[in-house]
Amino acid sequence: MPSKSRPEPNCSIARTLELVGDRWSFLILREAHNGITRFADFRDLLGIAPNILTARLASLVEAEILVKREYREDGARSRTSYHLTQRGADLKLVLGALQQWGDIHAPRDDGPTVIRRDAETGEQLDVAFVDPRGRSVDPEQVAFEPVVGGPADRYSAWR
Amino acid sequence: MPSKSRPEPNCSIARTLELVGDRWSFLILREAHNGITRFADFRDLLGIAPNILTARLASLVEAEILVKREYREDGARSRTSYHLTQRGADLKLVLGALQQWGDIHAPRDDGPTVIRRDAETGEQLDVAFVDPRGRSVDPEQVAFEPVVGGPADRYSAWR
Repeated sequence: MPSKSRPEPNCSIARTLELVGDRWSFLILREAHNGITRFADFRDLLGIAPNILTARLASLVEAEILVKREYREDGARSRTSYHLTQRGADLKLVLGALQQWGDIHAPRDDGPTVIRRDAETGEQLDVAFVDPRGRSVDPEQVAFEPVVGGPADRYSAWR
Repeated sequence: MPSKSRPEPNCSIARTLELVGDRWSFLILREAHNGITRFADFRDLLGIAPNILTARLASLVEAEILVKREYREDGARSRTSYHLTQRGADLKLVLGALQQWGDIHAPRDDGPTVIRRDAETGEQLDVAFVDPRGRSVDPEQVAFEPVVGGPADRYSAWR
């Protein structure tokens, strides 16, 4: 969550990190993308302290990345489950990019634990920059260009 | 950096976050991708406390995402500058994915501050999942599939 003492950042990267900018939040979102919804399952899979999990889930709900629902098992009291919103579902690409970088640059000896696959064709997928016709573009050819007159225009060497 | 008390994680997302898993690290990397190399420039652009900047730069150097070089301006003492390695350069796609999510889900009233552009054609670019022929694939069609027998196989509902 944005702190009260700092202005809201202009940059989309910074704005995104205000909402999901710590390791536990990303790992909770990884589990949510795996279909995990229950507090006890997040806690047990991640080995996260309950008070930290409570705080991170509350932040992700406040950021409208997760939404709470109530569920009740037979004879038990009502409990809360946590589900991805569209905003949360759209973080799949960020998780895929983090995963792909780790596959290449921080690999396990046994190879990747997870493959990104087209559910229809079964083909393995990468994350890439794509042009308006949906064709991938070499990352070296990609420039992050400041909008002229925008706040990022302060950079003399934005490349 | 991996803490001594935890085993090294199997998942590529977790392994990546061990190396770059906090907001300041991503923002330092954003500036590095903008061509920033000097301590004082990182400090002034980010408004980060010097002791935190020192610690984060040291972590990124230890992770071989940045590499130190010495430089000397006329009459001044030798100083250290920080440059992206190939590992660091390859995080461009992660930054692009964070940026794109923010453009869509945490937009500024004035629109994005930075456009991803093909430096050769000038076309605007997106980040996407792509198939082996480099064609983009609808994210809803993308499954994160555990490698059978791998550690992620514990999940019954990995989607």
